[in-house]
Amino acid sequence: MTWIEIPANSPFGPENLPLGIFRVGDEEPRVGAAIGDQVIDLALVASAQMLDGAQVFAEPTLNAFLARGPRTWHATRGWLLQLVWNSNERDAVEPHLIPQSAVTMLMPFEVADYVDFYASERHATNLGRLFRPDSAPLLPNWKHLPVGYHGRAGTVVASGTDIVRPSGQRKAPADDAPTYGPSQRLDIEVELGFVVGSPSKLGKPVSVDDFRDHVYGVVVVNDWSARDLQAWEYVPLGPFLGKSFATSISPWVVSLEALEAAAVPLGKQEPPVLPYLAGDRLTNYDITFEVYLNGQLVSSPPYKEMYWSPAQMLAHLSVNGASVRTGDLFASGTVSGVRKDQRGSFIELSWGGREPLTVNGEERTFLQDGDEVTITAHATAADGTLIGLGSVTGRILPAI
Amino acid sequence: MTWIEIPANSPFGPENLPLGIFRVGDEEPRVGAAIGDQVIDLALVASAQMLDGAQVFAEPTLNAFLARGPRTWHATRGWLLQLVWNSNERDAVEPHLIPQSAVTMLMPFEVADYVDFYASERHATNLGRLFRPDSAPLLPNWKHLPVGYHGRAGTVVASGTDIVRPSGQRKAPADDAPTYGPSQRLDIEVELGFVVGSPSKLGKPVSVDDFRDHVYGVVVVNDWSARDLQAWEYVPLGPFLGKSFATSISPWVVSLEALEAAAVPLGKQEPPVLPYLAGDRLTNYDITFEVYLNGQLVSSPPYKEMYWSPAQMLAHLSVNGASVRTGDLFASGTVSGVRKDQRGSFIELSWGGREPLTVNGEERTFLQDGDEVTITAHATAADGTLIGLGSVTGRILPAI
Repeated sequence: MTWIEIPANSPFGPENLPLGIFRVGDEEPRVGAAIGDQVIDLALVASAQMLDGAQVFAEPTLNAFLARGPRTWHATRGWLLQLVWNSNERDAVEPHLIPQSAVTMLMPFEVADYVDFYASERHATNLGRLFRPDSAPLLPNWKHLPVGYHGRAGTVVASGTDIVRPSGQRKAPADDAPTYGPSQRLDIEVELGFVVGSPSKLGKPVSVDDFRDHVYGVVVVNDWSARDLQAWEYVPLGPFLGKSFATSISPWVVSLEALEAAAVPLGKQEPPVLPYLAGDRLTNYDITFEVYLNGQLVSSPPYKEMYWSPAQMLAHLSVNGASVRTGDLFASGTVSGVRKDQRGSFIELSWGGREPLTVNGEERTFLQDGDEVTITAHATAADGTLIGLGSVTGRILPAI
Repeated sequence: MTWIEIPANSPFGPENLPLGIFRVGDEEPRVGAAIGDQVIDLALVASAQMLDGAQVFAEPTLNAFLARGPRTWHATRGWLLQLVWNSNERDAVEPHLIPQSAVTMLMPFEVADYVDFYASERHATNLGRLFRPDSAPLLPNWKHLPVGYHGRAGTVVASGTDIVRPSGQRKAPADDAPTYGPSQRLDIEVELGFVVGSPSKLGKPVSVDDFRDHVYGVVVVNDWSARDLQAWEYVPLGPFLGKSFATSISPWVVSLEALEAAAVPLGKQEPPVLPYLAGDRLTNYDITFEVYLNGQLVSSPPYKEMYWSPAQMLAHLSVNGASVRTGDLFASGTVSGVRKDQRGSFIELSWGGREPLTVNGEERTFLQDGDEVTITAHATAADGTLIGLGSVTGRILPAI
C-alpha cells in the first residue's frame, strides 16, 4: 500500500498524512507530512518537483497553504497519497524523509481568532452541578444553540510548551473577600480543535452544508483552566483569566478528508434545532482521547457522543454575519463521556476535588507543579483503520 | 506655534499628531499624521529625510511602528513636533501635506486579540438592573477586579464600514422557545480602546507601572451590540454572537504621550483593591464623547468617571501570565455618566426600550435600518487645550 516502512499500529498510516511545521537543527521551519515515524519534507519535495504553489510548503506556518482553500487541499492530498503509494516516487521522496525523532515540531499555524464551545452534554451537566449546585445543571439555552465564547488567540501554544501556574484572584464562597495567589485548582480540558482555512465574507453566514469549504482539519487541544480564578470571575461576562494563560495544541493537523472515514451520524437532538442549525448530513467523528498524568492513563473521553456537530458550531458562530479567517481555531469544549473514566477534566474526574483519583499510587485532584499531562487521540474508521491525531503535552512549572 | 495653518477648534492641533493609515486614489496605503484638516504623508517625509527606520511608515498598518516600542514612539513624537513647529522644515514637509478630504482612512492596525472590559460603574449598574432585574445590579466581583472578556478580533472594522443587521436566536422570557430572525434590539456601546504596541512575555504579568511601556495610544470604539441575541446566549459563558458581528474603531490613534496632558487622578476605589491592582499614580483621562444618531446629538458620556484605570485593566488581563502582542486592543467597556444624557448605549438611554428618546422629531429606542451613528471624542488638557480623538461612524444595513 506504501513503499514507506510504517511501524505496526502507527497513528500516521498511509491514508492519514497530517501536516505540520517542523524544524531540523537551525534550518528554516517548513511544512512536513507525518507518515509512520518519519516526516516528509514537503518544501524540498514540492520544490524539486516544481509543483505549482510549492512555496506554501516553505512557509513557517500552514496559513498560506490553508488560505488556498478546498481545491488546493484536495489536490495536495491527492499528491501526497500518490507520493507514498506509488513506488515510482521512491527515488524522489526517500532523500527527504526525516525521522520524527530528529525534528522539533512547532506551532502548526498562526491562530487568528480562538473560539471555545461547550458541546458535550455530559461535561456541561457536570460543570453545572459543580459550579451552580443550587440550580438546574443544564441552562435553558444549552439545547437550542452551541454555547461558546472567545478565548485568547495569543496564548495558544505549541505542544511541549511549559505551562507556568497562573496567579490571580480567587474567592471561596465562605471567604469575605478575594485573595491573590497561585491557582490551587489548575486543570485541563480535553478538546478537539477545528482549523479554518478558507475565509468567509463579513455579513455572510456559513451554512452547515458549507463546513468543509472552510474547515481544513483538526488538532488535539488542551484548554488549561484555573477553576478557582474562573469561578470568581465568570459572572456575568464569562471565563477570562481562568482560561487565557495558555491553550496547548498538537503539532499535526489531520485533514477532514482523512477523518471522513471515521465520520458517524450525529446523535438525535431534542428539542429539534432551528433551521439554520439543521441538516440531513450532520456528522460527528469516532475519536477517542487518552489522557495521561505523569504517564498513567486517567481517562478516555469519546468524541462521538458530543451533542453538537462541528458544522453546527461554525454555522452558529457565523449566523450573525461574523466572518471567519484563515487560522481561526474553534474548539469543541471539553469532551466527557458517561463513564467516570471518560471525563475530560480533573474537576470532573475528582468531582470538584472531593473524590481524589489514584495516580501512580498517590491521591490526586488538581494539577501539581511538575505534573506532565499528555493527551493523545485517534479516530477509528468504519473498517477499523486507526487515524491518529498525535498528542499534545505540557508540564506545569511553579507560579512566578 | 506651528507654520501649518490649523482651523480654529480643530481636534488635531500641533501637539496631538495622531497616526493613521490613509490611501490616496489607488496608491499604496501608508502612515500619516493628522494636523488640522490635513494629513502629513510620513512615508514620503521620512524617506526623503532618510530617517532611521523610515520603512515602518510605508507599511499598510501601524503594527511595524507599534512593535518598535516606547523609545521609538517617543523619538517619533519628537520628530513630528519638530516637523510642525520648526518653520525650517516647511520646505521639506509642505509638499507632503494632503487635505483629509482627499484621502480614505483605513484600519489603523491589524488587531491581534480584542478584549472588552466593563469598567463604568454606572453602565454595569444600569445593565445589571436591565438584564437581571431580580438581583443586586452590581455583582460581588465587580469592585474587586476589572471584569472583561475576549471579543472577536477578526470583525473589528474601520470607521465607515456599513454594519449589516445581525440575525440569530433570541427568546423573550414569555416565549416558550427561541426564534431565529434579525436582531430587534440593535445597539451601540461607546468605548475607549487602548492599543498595545510592545509585546510582553508569556508567563510574565505587566504591572500597573509598566502600562506606558506596552500601550501606545487610544482609539474611539463603537462595540455594536444585539441585546436580544446577547440576553439569550450569555449565561454562563458570556456574550458571543450579540457582539461578534462588528466592532468599529476610529482611524486616528492618539498617543498616550499626547493624551498625558488630559490625565486626571483615578477616583477612589472602595473596597481597596488587591496589591497587583494598586498604584500611587493611577490615572484616568478627561475625555468626553459625543454620540450622534442621524446627525442629532443624543448623549455625551464622560470618560473621567470610569471606575477602573486602563493600567489596572492591563495588569489584570496579564496577571495570570497571559502575554500581550503588538496590535492587541482592549476597550474600556461602555462609558456611561450619571446623567441620562451621558449614557453610552441605547438600552440605557431608552431604559430597555421603555422610555423612548426623541430624535429628529421621532420617538426612538434601538437602531433602525438606515440609521447612522457617529461617535466623536476629545480630551481636554488641564490648560483647556482640546486633544481630539476624531470619530467613528457606521450605518445600519438591513439583515440579509
